[in-house]
Amino acid sequence: MSDKQNRQFRPLPVPNVELHGLFGARQDAICNSTAATLLDRCVEAGMVRAIDVDKPSPGIILPLQTWSGSTQMFWDSDLGKSIETIAYSLYRRPNPELEARADAIIDMYEKLQQEDGYLNAWFQRVQPGRRWTNLRDHHELYCAGHLIEAAVAYYQATGKRKLLDIMSRFADYMITVFGHGEGQLRGYCGHEEVELALVKLGRVTGEKKYLDLAKYFIDERGQEPHFFTDEALRDGRDPAKFVQKTYEYNQAHQPVREQKKVVGHAVRAMYLYSGMADIATEYNDDSLTSALETLWDDLTTKQMYVTGGIGPAASNEGFTDYYDLPNESAYAETCASVGLVFWANRMLGRGPNRRYADIMEQALYNGAMAGLSLDGKTFFYENPLESAGKHHRWTWHNCPCCPPNIARLLASVGSYMYAAADNEIAVHLYGESKARVPLASGVTVELSQETNYPWDGAIHFGVNPDRGACFALSLRIPEWAEGATLAINGASVDLSSITVDGYARIEREWQSADKVDLNIPLIPRTLFANPKVRQDAGRAALMRGPLVYCVETTDNGLDLNGISLAGNPATAQTAEIAALEGAVALDIPVNRDDADWGSDLYRTAPPKSRSATARFVPYHLWDNREPGEMLVWVRAGQTQHGA
Amino acid sequence: MSDKQNRQFRPLPVPNVELHGLFGARQDAICNSTAATLLDRCVEAGMVRAIDVDKPSPGIILPLQTWSGSTQMFWDSDLGKSIETIAYSLYRRPNPELEARADAIIDMYEKLQQEDGYLNAWFQRVQPGRRWTNLRDHHELYCAGHLIEAAVAYYQATGKRKLLDIMSRFADYMITVFGHGEGQLRGYCGHEEVELALVKLGRVTGEKKYLDLAKYFIDERGQEPHFFTDEALRDGRDPAKFVQKTYEYNQAHQPVREQKKVVGHAVRAMYLYSGMADIATEYNDDSLTSALETLWDDLTTKQMYVTGGIGPAASNEGFTDYYDLPNESAYAETCASVGLVFWANRMLGRGPNRRYADIMEQALYNGAMAGLSLDGKTFFYENPLESAGKHHRWTWHNCPCCPPNIARLLASVGSYMYAAADNEIAVHLYGESKARVPLASGVTVELSQETNYPWDGAIHFGVNPDRGACFALSLRIPEWAEGATLAINGASVDLSSITVDGYARIEREWQSADKVDLNIPLIPRTLFANPKVRQDAGRAALMRGPLVYCVETTDNGLDLNGISLAGNPATAQTAEIAALEGAVALDIPVNRDDADWGSDLYRTAPPKSRSATARFVPYHLWDNREPGEMLVWVRAGQTQHGA
Repeated sequence: MSDKQNRQFRPLPVPNVELHGLFGARQDAICNSTAATLLDRCVEAGMVRAIDVDKPSPGIILPLQTWSGSTQMFWDSDLGKSIETIAYSLYRRPNPELEARADAIIDMYEKLQQEDGYLNAWFQRVQPGRRWTNLRDHHELYCAGHLIEAAVAYYQATGKRKLLDIMSRFADYMITVFGHGEGQLRGYCGHEEVELALVKLGRVTGEKKYLDLAKYFIDERGQEPHFFTDEALRDGRDPAKFVQKTYEYNQAHQPVREQKKVVGHAVRAMYLYSGMADIATEYNDDSLTSALETLWDDLTTKQMYVTGGIGPAASNEGFTDYYDLPNESAYAETCASVGLVFWANRMLGRGPNRRYADIMEQALYNGAMAGLSLDGKTFFYENPLESAGKHHRWTWHNCPCCPPNIARLLASVGSYMYAAADNEIAVHLYGESKARVPLASGVTVELSQETNYPWDGAIHFGVNPDRGACFALSLRIPEWAEGATLAINGASVDLSSITVDGYARIEREWQSADKVDLNIPLIPRTLFANPKVRQDAGRAALMRGPLVYCVETTDNGLDLNGISLAGNPATAQTAEIAALEGAVALDIPVNRDDADWGSDLYRTAPPKSRSATARFVPYHLWDNREPGEMLVWVRAGQTQHGA
Repeated sequence: MSDKQNRQFRPLPVPNVELHGLFGARQDAICNSTAATLLDRCVEAGMVRAIDVDKPSPGIILPLQTWSGSTQMFWDSDLGKSIETIAYSLYRRPNPELEARADAIIDMYEKLQQEDGYLNAWFQRVQPGRRWTNLRDHHELYCAGHLIEAAVAYYQATGKRKLLDIMSRFADYMITVFGHGEGQLRGYCGHEEVELALVKLGRVTGEKKYLDLAKYFIDERGQEPHFFTDEALRDGRDPAKFVQKTYEYNQAHQPVREQKKVVGHAVRAMYLYSGMADIATEYNDDSLTSALETLWDDLTTKQMYVTGGIGPAASNEGFTDYYDLPNESAYAETCASVGLVFWANRMLGRGPNRRYADIMEQALYNGAMAGLSLDGKTFFYENPLESAGKHHRWTWHNCPCCPPNIARLLASVGSYMYAAADNEIAVHLYGESKARVPLASGVTVELSQETNYPWDGAIHFGVNPDRGACFALSLRIPEWAEGATLAINGASVDLSSITVDGYARIEREWQSADKVDLNIPLIPRTLFANPKVRQDAGRAALMRGPLVYCVETTDNGLDLNGISLAGNPATAQTAEIAALEGAVALDIPVNRDDADWGSDLYRTAPPKSRSATARFVPYHLWDNREPGEMLVWVRAGQTQHGA
């Protein structure tokens, strides 16, 4: 494994990938609606006024949120993610009006920035004098991080450096503030985010100092004497009166390399691990990779919904006990699944491995993508796996973190599909697309995918290096893809002989117009949960390819818990649903409890059962038609369990 | 039915019933522990200091509760229920020390009472000047009601009139405050309770004016123009800013006779309906009875747990949607099931009817009785039907309404077992006991039950009138009691020929030493929920007699959701559990998911299953042994459904 560990895969820049198919449609919705909507809502909430130094400070705007701070305190992050989304949307579709609006906001930030580089709407405009006094609760570096991400994206999209320069100045100032030197703060943020943002800044500017600062924040986290305790005492606060009670909430209870259990606030955890994985890649840091592998196992074998949703509890927006995965009350915040995609993607930095990429795909297509409606106009914050009919997407949210988060992920999803190391291209995700991959050798490869994935498993690659060249092309073979086949220029290849860590690694001399045909059978499969997941006992979930399926009232009427599987779902009939942009539905034989039960609440005889067909649709598309009930884990009944 | 409607059954006074068996044991625990414990905890909370005019006002004691008021605001009610419990305990076992402590509190209330009769710790000691300014939120009449109930019980127990006189003075003052006259308030309390208390006061004093005031409160409730709205405006509050958003919370959204749906805060609802039923009995008010019958149906066919728990949601401590009965997150407050017992009992005021008495028994033995540990020292506030192992009884609660509520119910349960009309005795509940029933004719009947009910269904009555007399003895035949038999002095009687509304009505000339033998087969039965109860789909609950059963980890290990029924529970083996005071357990063949699943969280093959025996124990006894998981609704599996 040692040779692999020195490979450093970095995602393709967003502009290098052109998307069609399902992802292309999502990006069109973002270009058509979401990008401008995000900005509109930020304006309505007062966020833009809040950074406009030509207007008086807005003061504290009620109602305050009661988490560990006010959401107003992290409005910079909402603006940052919105600008980031706009940037990605501008790659796909130039929009001078939207670009002008973003430019205007960037101009405001330029005017707001202080002499020394500091920049934060809340601590400059609402609570001046409180700068760096409560890193634990007040999202100060978190806000900086999101503005840095916006700056990188906006620079890449438009070539305009203004925000990048602003945020580089801020980062330079941070380098003077944080460290072990005399008068420096040995601190880090209570809401991780700046770490991964600084890595992006370092990569785009080529400045290692930003990576070093990110590494500093990661190395320092959870060390004793504890920064959050010292900081509270300095600030006259009782450290014991932390509303979240434990530093596990912030993943600051132990040094990060000693952490073995995924705990606390789910989004915070994902952002931390993402930053750790980036630093592990950039520094070839095996100690970080080793800790991350343990944490990965902990999350994915004990704490993850089948949708890739994570963090079941609203109370801490995060993790509870192992195997505690309630369906109807699942918090499973959109941002947390987005964060899991971030983390999984960065775990691929040290080499392709389907252990990470399969989960990345699962979280992306289900827990994350559910967060945005097909028209790009409404958003889920929580993503339950069961609804009695009252859970619907919001046009906005008091804590508006999720809308721009799912939007920026989908608008940049091309960079999650492809990654490149010196002389190797990894294809982590499938979908109709064209990618331009510059290799270290100077060769540029045009790589195309012709496919209707995820609706169909036939994927046709065109490999077009600008000159004949030897490099490796690694294609993920999902663990669930039983019976997958591969052909190179029409000649079958024995997959097992070339598959490493779940990727078919094709190392050869490539010529222009080479073809690779990958076929992944998309046979519906029935999933059962570990018997320790009490909420799923006696129940089953259906998947086809990367997609989790569910039943909805609009197709199946009321009382979805009266459905139990009958027969083998592998033999399901498929049907295209026009109202869901051609999504593939599965029609499956089931038994249904008879609704003709009368008025009794309890009886000594069970409900009668009748044979029926139930229509299953992709989970991420639920609540895009008539509102109603929804259910993922249906009763397993007498199903034959074909994989 | 017209002749029945003029019957007026009233419960026997508590001192007229002597209890043994299961209820006797519970009462012993209350005498030994609970009664004094309640008072100790009231003292610790500061409640006694709060009414002591010789000490300074305690002011507002933090932390405040955030319901519609501070719990401190209703401390009088906690003291009232505690004194009521002590009073009942003194019938069973004289305790001069405890009586002296209660007397001392009563003396404090005497000193606290104002000239005009007003009495309320909060509005005299903490917020003087706010009297009668916010009836909606501030529990003012609710507190009065509980002190009235205490006064009645204490007078009956000890013959001491002091508290009764105090509360009669207060009630006399209320009569001047509330009404339609010039300068009177057209109000009523936001937390119903005083209505049923005034009925008790009227019955014990023979003063109809107290019944009339109760009827006034009931008649006035929900009328327009709305008192709560007018009151808020007078008080400078915005009526729209009611934290509970709707007057349904207080059952004040409509005049009570127009209400058809059980809504809002569950305890408030039960107390209102109890008061309504009392007034229906006292005034032969068919319009109230008719509304109550509709509400009864609504509750028991759409909104009641199989345990008789009600009010699934913590957010409003009350009702949500029809058929929404989550098990693990069930609020099902102990007080709410106690309140359901109150209501059911009062629905029997117009004649025996098992429609009410069966539910009374079900709520009493399950949802309510679970609230008190076997040793009488710890208490449940919420009563979920499933626990992952972290739900346990409290020694106390920030909102300590439940401990004295379940204690006073159990300490007075004799009066729920027996009721008498002019020339008729109704036996609503079974259990080893002796009752002294004075009839209107002047005859006094000593009625004894020799039985090990609810563990065994053989019940032997001794009927001993002090002279030969003709009267009716009505014995409830529960709806579930298939195959019940009856014999009078050894001679079988055809039950169907004498059963009216589910009661065997034995009207004859009774002589001393007459015997009635009732045999109720206690065959375990499997209950299924209406398919609209999504949380119970594919699941079953076991009952035997009035008792709901559950599985616990202490008998069955972990992962209780891996259990599914196999075979016919009617043929269960029974076993006595010494650690649960001889309670009858049911050992039943089941299948269990194999725990040997490995580390996967999800797999395409279901867990293997193995045959096993599971031990079911009465739900109300759970969490009396080693702590662990608990489950009522187990997977129905392939059970044969014997009733």
